[in-house]
Amino acid sequence: METLRVIKIGGNIIDHEENLQDFLHQLAELKGLKILVHGGGKLATRLAGQLQIPQQLVEGRRITDAETLKVITMVYAGFINKNIVAALQSMNCNAIGLCGADGNLVTAKKRTGTDIDYGFVGDVESINVELLKSFLDQQLIPVIAPVTHNGKGQLLNTNADTIAQEIARSLSKFYNAELVYSFDKAGVLEDTEDDNSLISLLNPELYESLKNSGKIFAGMIPKLDNAFEALKSGVSKVIIGKAENLPGLLNGSSGTSIVL
Amino acid sequence: METLRVIKIGGNIIDHEENLQDFLHQLAELKGLKILVHGGGKLATRLAGQLQIPQQLVEGRRITDAETLKVITMVYAGFINKNIVAALQSMNCNAIGLCGADGNLVTAKKRTGTDIDYGFVGDVESINVELLKSFLDQQLIPVIAPVTHNGKGQLLNTNADTIAQEIARSLSKFYNAELVYSFDKAGVLEDTEDDNSLISLLNPELYESLKNSGKIFAGMIPKLDNAFEALKSGVSKVIIGKAENLPGLLNGSSGTSIVL
Repeated sequence: METLRVIKIGGNIIDHEENLQDFLHQLAELKGLKILVHGGGKLATRLAGQLQIPQQLVEGRRITDAETLKVITMVYAGFINKNIVAALQSMNCNAIGLCGADGNLVTAKKRTGTDIDYGFVGDVESINVELLKSFLDQQLIPVIAPVTHNGKGQLLNTNADTIAQEIARSLSKFYNAELVYSFDKAGVLEDTEDDNSLISLLNPELYESLKNSGKIFAGMIPKLDNAFEALKSGVSKVIIGKAENLPGLLNGSSGTSIVL
Repeated sequence: METLRVIKIGGNIIDHEENLQDFLHQLAELKGLKILVHGGGKLATRLAGQLQIPQQLVEGRRITDAETLKVITMVYAGFINKNIVAALQSMNCNAIGLCGADGNLVTAKKRTGTDIDYGFVGDVESINVELLKSFLDQQLIPVIAPVTHNGKGQLLNTNADTIAQEIARSLSKFYNAELVYSFDKAGVLEDTEDDNSLISLLNPELYESLKNSGKIFAGMIPKLDNAFEALKSGVSKVIIGKAENLPGLLNGSSGTSIVL
């Protein structure tokens, strides 16, 4: 089977024009099939501030009221997505920017039944595998913003890590799917403040023990849960690490490899 | 040849949720191949105001500085585009939202050599006909925002009427291409204030005489120049009229038919 890389880019990289351009150059030069899923960065928070829309974060997750959804749609699916696509196009990489509503790419269900009302936040329900396959067949590079829809006209704010994982696992029936979470840290760290404390290989046992000792916490937990979930569902490889060294992440010389 | 409708929606319709939904229902029910090109409405101006970005209009055209381009990209390619797509999806219409950078769909050249510096405004250079054909073959309905790119990483604000016209003429080699400019007026009017003064058939002679007498003026002139240009380049039909009666525009019972 042909190898397909599903690459998530997140964290501060998106807010730093130069770092983002460096990353996109590496992505453009990467041979083979690839899909990029991007997060939002701090631009949405900044724009919400300028528009005096109060932002509420619960356990690192944004409560998405109607006005915040508007900001997110504008920033994620508009500004960030289209600027990434235009940059990749200038690097001879035939990118196509999409959100989950486009071609019914990613449907989601509004999150309910939790103690907290997250507002217009959606959990992924389905991936349009045929559409992605047809784009890949046409040598198009899908660039996906973390905005989905419920099929009833409602856009929903959705976690980009989860979208990347769901896409990788859905496509793992047709490709040797590798999933890369790239961000501004070196990978999974024993000490979050020290890039030298990189764990290069993480299996479920080590994960459990690091979680129990409190060394892995906060946003890293759902990311790693996503990673193990992906491996269990047919994704061949999951790597977490620094966006500035994409080739290193792919050849195993950099970042944390997640294994079962 | 199969008939393809290229439909431009503009004007106040986009700002009125109910009218827009009515229009989208008609579009969703329309059988056959179709492409939607949308304008921006007043939302971009409103957002620029909230963000205290001064807006400068010269002869009805927006001067697009870097901050304004950001607003336009967010509003046109983000908010409006994705909400239209999500609405169409809820109506069983498999829409895919795109700007000109996506799949290198519409390239443009920054406007230079005029007395006025329009900023990041682009004039259409090329249409990716193969991409549009492949989407139509896949029963996807392209929904296109008036943001293009120059192939060097720069997004550009581009006139939606012109994009619609260039798409219709490029595709007229492969389809019986019809071009519909739908907006909030009944069509081309003898008296812009009176919807009853509709001119149902407009040929170049009548156009010249109405221009000379000052009855056709301002924004209608580039729209009609676009319309005649399209007919000369192979588009089979151009109709201008009210978005609220799309079937009427298509069957000739409503709006102004432009003929050579």
